[in-house]
Amino acid sequence: MTMSDSKLVLAANDAYYKAFRTGDDALMGRLWDEGDVSVIHPGWPAVTGRKQVLESYRRIMSNPMQDPVIAEDVEITLIDSFARVICTERVGEAGLIATNLFRKTGDLWRLYHHQASPLAFPLGPRTSSLN
Amino acid sequence: MTMSDSKLVLAANDAYYKAFRTGDDALMGRLWDEGDVSVIHPGWPAVTGRKQVLESYRRIMSNPMQDPVIAEDVEITLIDSFARVICTERVGEAGLIATNLFRKTGDLWRLYHHQASPLAFPLGPRTSSLN
Repeated sequence: MTMSDSKLVLAANDAYYKAFRTGDDALMGRLWDEGDVSVIHPGWPAVTGRKQVLESYRRIMSNPMQDPVIAEDVEITLIDSFARVICTERVGEAGLIATNLFRKTGDLWRLYHHQASPLAFPLGPRTSSLN
Repeated sequence: MTMSDSKLVLAANDAYYKAFRTGDDALMGRLWDEGDVSVIHPGWPAVTGRKQVLESYRRIMSNPMQDPVIAEDVEITLIDSFARVICTERVGEAGLIATNLFRKTGDLWRLYHHQASPLAFPLGPRTSSLN
């Protein structure tokens, strides 16, 4: 694995949060793998299957009460054909800890799994600008 | 991937919960990959690194107030050199939803990442016997 892969994963991770914040359903669709993907939103059971996963995002993104999600402290680990991204998500006053699992197919890194869990403690002040 | 791999992953997943329930530190050590592993316990920030991950389990398993964790509704997906296991964890009265990511090295499937998130709704009655 090369630095280039790390940069591609970071760009894909940034694009995911941008799609989420802007409600960009088409971009969200391009960011997810065509395979048997899964997502675990905070408090929800698992959602599996590409159609179901994208529908779950559509519902959340169409909620006018949804606070913007900002990723911080992004850590990327490349391993075989996967990249594990762990980051803190700042959602209004709340903090979540998230895993974004990307899979490489061809030159593309796409999301295969996302899970976000509530943190039991408050986050400090913002450490980074909007990504 | 073959049926045999699914069975090996299920056995490794069962062994993980057995090690957790019985506080078997040696078994827990054998179940985790030698690489840059990670765990996100409910409410905690991420713990990364093999030594740190195993130490975090040691602390939880040595807590006499820790309820036994029972896995239910186990779903296994094999993809490249990884297996994604999603299951419900019954911990006393509480329900968690967990992702266990296993990596195949040689003939062994070992844990690379674990994340457990609290569910926002109560679990129904037990659907399976102790695994």
